[in-house]
Amino acid sequence: MRLVIVGGDAAGMSAASEARRRAPDAEIIILEATNDVSYGACGLPYKLLEGADVEELNIISAEQFRRDRNLDVRLRHRVDRLDPKAKMVSGLAENGTFELTYDRLLIATGASAIRPPIDGLAELWGNGVYTLKTLQDGRDVKAALAKRPKTAAVIGGGYIGLEATENLRELGLDVTVVEAMPEIAPFLPHSMRKRLLEEAKRHGVHMKLSARVNRAERGTTGIVLETTDGKVDADMVLVAVGVRPNSSMAEQAGLELGAAGSIAVNEKLETSEANVYAAGDCADAQHVVTGKSTWIALALRANRAGKLVGQNMVGGHGQAPGVLGTAVFKFFGLEIARTGLSLQEAKDAGFDAVGAEILSVTRAHYYPGGGRISVGLVADKKSGKLLGATMVGPEAAAHKIDTVAAALHGRMTVNDLYGMDLAYAPPFGPSWSPLLIAASKLAKTLKG
Amino acid sequence: MRLVIVGGDAAGMSAASEARRRAPDAEIIILEATNDVSYGACGLPYKLLEGADVEELNIISAEQFRRDRNLDVRLRHRVDRLDPKAKMVSGLAENGTFELTYDRLLIATGASAIRPPIDGLAELWGNGVYTLKTLQDGRDVKAALAKRPKTAAVIGGGYIGLEATENLRELGLDVTVVEAMPEIAPFLPHSMRKRLLEEAKRHGVHMKLSARVNRAERGTTGIVLETTDGKVDADMVLVAVGVRPNSSMAEQAGLELGAAGSIAVNEKLETSEANVYAAGDCADAQHVVTGKSTWIALALRANRAGKLVGQNMVGGHGQAPGVLGTAVFKFFGLEIARTGLSLQEAKDAGFDAVGAEILSVTRAHYYPGGGRISVGLVADKKSGKLLGATMVGPEAAAHKIDTVAAALHGRMTVNDLYGMDLAYAPPFGPSWSPLLIAASKLAKTLKG
Repeated sequence: MRLVIVGGDAAGMSAASEARRRAPDAEIIILEATNDVSYGACGLPYKLLEGADVEELNIISAEQFRRDRNLDVRLRHRVDRLDPKAKMVSGLAENGTFELTYDRLLIATGASAIRPPIDGLAELWGNGVYTLKTLQDGRDVKAALAKRPKTAAVIGGGYIGLEATENLRELGLDVTVVEAMPEIAPFLPHSMRKRLLEEAKRHGVHMKLSARVNRAERGTTGIVLETTDGKVDADMVLVAVGVRPNSSMAEQAGLELGAAGSIAVNEKLETSEANVYAAGDCADAQHVVTGKSTWIALALRANRAGKLVGQNMVGGHGQAPGVLGTAVFKFFGLEIARTGLSLQEAKDAGFDAVGAEILSVTRAHYYPGGGRISVGLVADKKSGKLLGATMVGPEAAAHKIDTVAAALHGRMTVNDLYGMDLAYAPPFGPSWSPLLIAASKLAKTLKG
Repeated sequence: MRLVIVGGDAAGMSAASEARRRAPDAEIIILEATNDVSYGACGLPYKLLEGADVEELNIISAEQFRRDRNLDVRLRHRVDRLDPKAKMVSGLAENGTFELTYDRLLIATGASAIRPPIDGLAELWGNGVYTLKTLQDGRDVKAALAKRPKTAAVIGGGYIGLEATENLRELGLDVTVVEAMPEIAPFLPHSMRKRLLEEAKRHGVHMKLSARVNRAERGTTGIVLETTDGKVDADMVLVAVGVRPNSSMAEQAGLELGAAGSIAVNEKLETSEANVYAAGDCADAQHVVTGKSTWIALALRANRAGKLVGQNMVGGHGQAPGVLGTAVFKFFGLEIARTGLSLQEAKDAGFDAVGAEILSVTRAHYYPGGGRISVGLVADKKSGKLLGATMVGPEAAAHKIDTVAAALHGRMTVNDLYGMDLAYAPPFGPSWSPLLIAASKLAKTLKG
């Protein structure tokens, strides 16, 4: 049996490794368009620092996969066409075009950084203007940083943009974030977004909100961005306005698409075509709270789906669990975390949703250190069921968010959360966990 | 209506405050044996440090309760007899005996530090030998520390003993822990107990395990403990061998007792006698996992039960949720956390229990800082249901334990946990959360 896997990052290589474990004799061919397989892209913002090596993000090399796991990894093989009837993929490699038939195919093409259609930007990619998605992006940005730029502009105030902002500031650059929306982190309640903006200010980051970039061009010393809120001069520009699923080949082959144009898959990660699977950032998933197709490009989901599809391609019957979009990032001295639906997302999904926010502390009032933690909860008014949570704090938030994730997986109510026996000791919080305080407040709202 | 509350700490004052909120006109009398109400006893070990003030642990003073909440707080009123037939309590105050009838009574007498029957110890209490349970204990120990002792012995290697040990070391004392059991923290798997012992060693703490104290006496410079493992000289001795519920008055009045001699209560926190409630460290609770009576003296449980019983005493119908014994403490650079049953406890409770332990990291491999986190999970072999968890690590453990607590409240299985969409970012762990890695390992054991 021949398994062909298109894409050699998290989902693709997890699938290949798992399939090999279960099917020692299967022919497993991985077609990867770039030079790199299996790397920790999430670490890229942290590798901008001096002395930090982008190559450290390489988890296992193509050579190791070949040698230790008997996987036929083919680098610089770009697949551009799928013919499900003929069970064949074709594309371009260094030595010309190739065609390859499969018994089972996995599409694990991931997602790509969005390159917004800003006037003048197209000519500047890789030459003063960068994204931060692939290992090669990381190398390019590091090369740009080696020239000791003094100023940087970051277009986009999402996770990646803010993580990169922190690290560029650590490097000593003067950083301006240009965000088209009126606020950053729109999934957060207003009070928590404010904390992020305060944190940015405290660390000398210039924030331009509601500022669209109309034009980019090379100036005398660097790049000049013309925005709706004035000009921004920057020695280098990072564009972090989001990612989109790499699903065009699947779409052209007639495969069904799901949320946000990702490839629709069922619980077994099968696409609408027989013997064609999809996993990772290119595929959709079922949201635990809404039960509907969702597209969430996060590392754990991709790794998990890869492992699972690797089983299923060689005869397994694993079912992908639903996703919540549980996520966390660090922004200077703050941890920002979320799981499930924001209040707006819940309303958009048709819930009669209510939210409550509280401010508590991360250590007992008499224990030194720590700080204020914000907790927001969202629930359905009728059923009392939890729908989502957000947290911002100097510590604890990154880990505490998982408690609500567990509650969401268990379809629990606000009162269920309020009744939980959670840990307490003075160095780690007040005796009533901030989560319980938030649940108490929300429970009162539900009654009212 | 007259409510009488015996005991003015966490449960008692929470109950009084809640009852007052709901019944502005009720007569509410709190009889407290000591000089102190409503204090954070859990903070005592941390108040041993120089400059730290034990009085900061006072949350609200008796005077504030009287003035702001119209509560009749009577200090130095020791209740020693309950007559449920006559609906009366009696006892001793400064100006003689007193009798008081009630419409509804709450017993919130808490727990007391155990004073082990060691030869010679009785004469030394408060004079070189101390417990660390009440605010007065804290004052006494602080007074002893003001004399600049150089050496201390801590009898008992439980939470309190180890927390105190850390703080005494911070003060520069030479500390010897004398523990009668062969290891400390018996609820932990062996590998994690070992980490605690290594941490003790790293911080210069002398550990005497399997060492029983046979005799204590005053030596030429301090106290001499004769143990089964040699003599220990110490300028001061802390005894932290556990607590027991203050239930003797209830027992004498014929009230039913529960686990560990605590007062048996139902979900409404009613005792076996009409109009008599019990809450906090003197009362039992229902364990979520076993469904049986358990006795767990922890702050959140006491606060929660107090609030609830305050509602029920004035006509509410609140039901106490089950408990898990979720707990955490800090020991130098380690966080030690648990929830639910240990492997041994699960076996003792009749489960066909299996456990798995893993060692993971608290940050991505390429992200600086952090360290190794141990995670242990226990499950029932037949049903796959989770029964408990333990964690030890330099960070994250104190908060991550709540994820398993949520899963236990939700009666989830190991596979449910393994399917959870948990948070990930490089500063906070690997993409597969240590919890998921542990669940994966345990799931394999369950299949085998």
